[in-house]
Amino acid sequence: MANSTNPGAAIRPWQILEQRLLVDRSPYAKVYDEDVQLPNGEKIANFLRVELPPYVMAFALLKDNTVAMVRQYRLGLRDTMLELPAGHLEAGEDSLIGAQRELLEETGIAGSDWQPLGKYMMDANRECGWAHLFLVRGAEQVTPPNAGDLGDVSVEFLSVDEVHRAWANGELVIGPTALCIGLALDALRCQS
Amino acid sequence: MANSTNPGAAIRPWQILEQRLLVDRSPYAKVYDEDVQLPNGEKIANFLRVELPPYVMAFALLKDNTVAMVRQYRLGLRDTMLELPAGHLEAGEDSLIGAQRELLEETGIAGSDWQPLGKYMMDANRECGWAHLFLVRGAEQVTPPNAGDLGDVSVEFLSVDEVHRAWANGELVIGPTALCIGLALDALRCQS
Repeated sequence: MANSTNPGAAIRPWQILEQRLLVDRSPYAKVYDEDVQLPNGEKIANFLRVELPPYVMAFALLKDNTVAMVRQYRLGLRDTMLELPAGHLEAGEDSLIGAQRELLEETGIAGSDWQPLGKYMMDANRECGWAHLFLVRGAEQVTPPNAGDLGDVSVEFLSVDEVHRAWANGELVIGPTALCIGLALDALRCQS
Repeated sequence: MANSTNPGAAIRPWQILEQRLLVDRSPYAKVYDEDVQLPNGEKIANFLRVELPPYVMAFALLKDNTVAMVRQYRLGLRDTMLELPAGHLEAGEDSLIGAQRELLEETGIAGSDWQPLGKYMMDANRECGWAHLFLVRGAEQVTPPNAGDLGDVSVEFLSVDEVHRAWANGELVIGPTALCIGLALDALRCQS
């Protein structure tokens, strides 16, 4: 850390006084109210927490130097969008195993050279789920896609340059996909 | 698009049959149940939608080549974390104006060379808010921080290399911050 405007200050935790379950859509979502107390003694009632299940996502670079993406209708967005293959972790499932399973199910692609790109909470105030992100290189299509997903799905293959351009232009508007692309492009650049 | 396993397939939208407000914590959050119909006719009840307010975030590169970050306790994470300066847009506020306001409030920093890095929905199924991301170059501290935020806040200045290293190592676990850093580092690399 180069320096700080508040260098000696300890960042004190908040205290959770009470938690109340408001909506239970297990295993897909749980919404809570939390009453909390700040370090200065101030209390806040009904601070909403949204627990969504952890999910995995893979940036799969194939042997022909293309990247596998999926196009689907997304209810949150009210539109179709191109994203990286992803899906929920099963209960107790290791995140790498889950990423390999989801990639194979959604796109029929497998690979052996996997690298974790970190896990990320999508909302610092409310939670909104953890995304476990991965890069796999030298991947190849070994079977047809069999997503079993809701609605229509199209698997599309873009060159790394096409992915970079669409990402840098802000066209890939779903946060977890855009985050995973940034980390994967950097990993490919730094280690190639 | 290089090619597709489902090239001629149109991706058909879902139909929203009904929406019911479950939790109203305006202006901070609204939670809905939605009943939807898939293209194949199948119906899904109680698909949860979580509307969080749009927010702005800035990667501020100062004239001494450091990046301004803030460390706070984050209730979603149950821990303190280093993030880029950010905050909610006010009603009707332009996103660039909001980013300039939030950066100045949280860190006392201003700059003139602003570049949008896109806007991103944090959950494709449920919404969970739109993040409007920005890069500002040649910025400088013009006034002391005056966040008025909840709890303790420490403003810290890291070199671009320190930010890159912490980000690539997966240490900056809050999704929107990690996304904004990836886009900003790429913009700095491509245009410097």
